[in-house]
Amino acid sequence: MSVKDLIRTIPDFPQKGIMFRDITTVLQAAEGLQAAVDEMDEASKGIDYDVIVGPESRGFIFGVPLAYKNHKGFVPVRKPGKLPAEVYSQDYSLEYGTATLEMHKDALQPGQKVLIVDDLLATGGTARAIAKLVEKAGAEVAGFVFLIELVDLKGRDILAEYPVRSLVEYEGE
Amino acid sequence: MSVKDLIRTIPDFPQKGIMFRDITTVLQAAEGLQAAVDEMDEASKGIDYDVIVGPESRGFIFGVPLAYKNHKGFVPVRKPGKLPAEVYSQDYSLEYGTATLEMHKDALQPGQKVLIVDDLLATGGTARAIAKLVEKAGAEVAGFVFLIELVDLKGRDILAEYPVRSLVEYEGE
Repeated sequence: MSVKDLIRTIPDFPQKGIMFRDITTVLQAAEGLQAAVDEMDEASKGIDYDVIVGPESRGFIFGVPLAYKNHKGFVPVRKPGKLPAEVYSQDYSLEYGTATLEMHKDALQPGQKVLIVDDLLATGGTARAIAKLVEKAGAEVAGFVFLIELVDLKGRDILAEYPVRSLVEYEGE
Repeated sequence: MSVKDLIRTIPDFPQKGIMFRDITTVLQAAEGLQAAVDEMDEASKGIDYDVIVGPESRGFIFGVPLAYKNHKGFVPVRKPGKLPAEVYSQDYSLEYGTATLEMHKDALQPGQKVLIVDDLLATGGTARAIAKLVEKAGAEVAGFVFLIELVDLKGRDILAEYPVRSLVEYEGE
């Protein structure tokens, strides 16, 4: 049973024409969660990092166990107004309009090497915004690890300056 | 360095009079994340469970590494409209108005024993709503583990029928 076999595809969610890749069916199976975390960890070998950064809320699902397994810290990136101390903010474009992500100003130390973890690489907009937050803090993006990559959306192209790893690819669907 | 030493208290967030207990300073320290997960795991010993359920989004932060460490599955409880398949819904009261939580109908099997994990026990409203979702699915609440308990808010009282464990208590502050 591979991780990809455990991902459930739900057509037309959240809107018509979208094939939604549902990872909850991976997580709820003990062997699925083990395999997803262990294989993302394996995929990140060769990327040298000090700390993991992941976005609310599915980035927490994979970023925290990876950090725990590797005895690293974890820094959450959140939607506006959720983090209580001083933050860096970064706007990014959505299909319609813009959104904003925040990270605590004192979460990273200058020069720290950061692995960015999320469940899904689509257009790369969120990933790029997180990289900018890391760089605002004076830290260095060591690379990215995603569970799923939607290859047709070419998110990898706007992250071309960084190492990018993913476990499960969907293409032409 | 204890977990409690790493929690940062921020006065008047998100509103005047609230002493916000900021766990990001625990997570960003490698030894803090290890200690928090390991001590929550230790606190849950004696609670026999098959699977962990945790709410968006800070419940993911502790629930997933605990599930990973114990080779269990993890089931996310989310805000409305986030889960793509059929869900159970549960309303609960907030200080002003109500909120709703959802869980996939096929996430738990009848008779499964569930450990519910979250970062904070305050009034217990969220915890109680999650217990109701678990019971709607025909599963059994084996107990709760929280990182932080705000003792004055008496959340433990409305969870009196279940085992409740917490690592760090705040009282009279």
